Amino acid sequence: MKEKNHQYMKEAIKEAKISLKESGIPIGAVLVENKNIKGRGHNKLLQDDSTILHAEMDCIENAGRLKGVDYKKCTLYTTLSPCEMCSGTIILYKIPRVVMGENKTLKGPEEYLIENGVELINMNLDECKIILENFIQKNPDLWNEEIERVHD
Amino acid sequence: MKEKNHQYMKEAIKEAKISLKESGIPIGAVLVENKNIKGRGHNKLLQDDSTILHAEMDCIENAGRLKGVDYKKCTLYTTLSPCEMCSGTIILYKIPRVVMGENKTLKGPEEYLIENGVELINMNLDECKIILENFIQKNPDLWNEEIERVHD
Repeated sequence: MKEKNHQYMKEAIKEAKISLKESGIPIGAVLVENKNIKGRGHNKLLQDDSTILHAEMDCIENAGRLKGVDYKKCTLYTTLSPCEMCSGTIILYKIPRVVMGENKTLKGPEEYLIENGVELINMNLDECKIILENFIQKNPDLWNEEIERVHD
Repeated sequence: MKEKNHQYMKEAIKEAKISLKESGIPIGAVLVENKNIKGRGHNKLLQDDSTILHAEMDCIENAGRLKGVDYKKCTLYTTLSPCEMCSGTIILYKIPRVVMGENKTLKGPEEYLIENGVELINMNLDECKIILENFIQKNPDLWNEEIERVHD
């Protein structure tokens, strides 16, 4: 099980690195149903001026019009703890399991996910933290813009 | 105050009608800051095969990269009660006030919004219900596809 998590988290990290190459925020995600990657995506705040295309949202969007019965078999792998928007989407589509790379850089409403029956696994991976921390150190203004947008 | 709500709800209804003309689900929304419409949008499930562009999401996306201080002055007008995804987004960006056209056709997690300090106003407008109910009567399969996706 742990090995399988690593396999798909690597795909989420690949997405984070694609975003970095596009000069975007390096957060990535993949949606997996029975060993099949149904969707993949990354944060597009900077690439598309998008305030809704967080990695998880981009990934779910790219999965297309899945059926409800499919979402209920999926695991969402994301390099960072999901925010309120992404958590709401996970709950809307009843995605039962979320594997995150880390929650040190930013932590979403994990209790809210758990209360709604979502199984949460935090892999606490240095690689995910380092990619994002390096971006933040090099682009403090862009990161502060995002933090101002979503925090008190 | 009530007259102002009607003025902007009319704009949200215009968006719902634009969606209908595009053969889409007739749900619309506008985001208003100090009498200025910062964004407008409508459901794009059918037009774009989008599972994330609910009216509220499309509207917030179209508003662009607003600052956090701006979202905190906004009211979101939507023809239908916001779902879990849209509610999570409202909470993420701390939009303090939501005016909805109705919540009979579908009702989102209104308690969750209220618990998070969002002021909710339900205008309970027949016009919003009728537009959506007519669509559902004419397109039961499309509507049932969406309901299967988001409900148990």
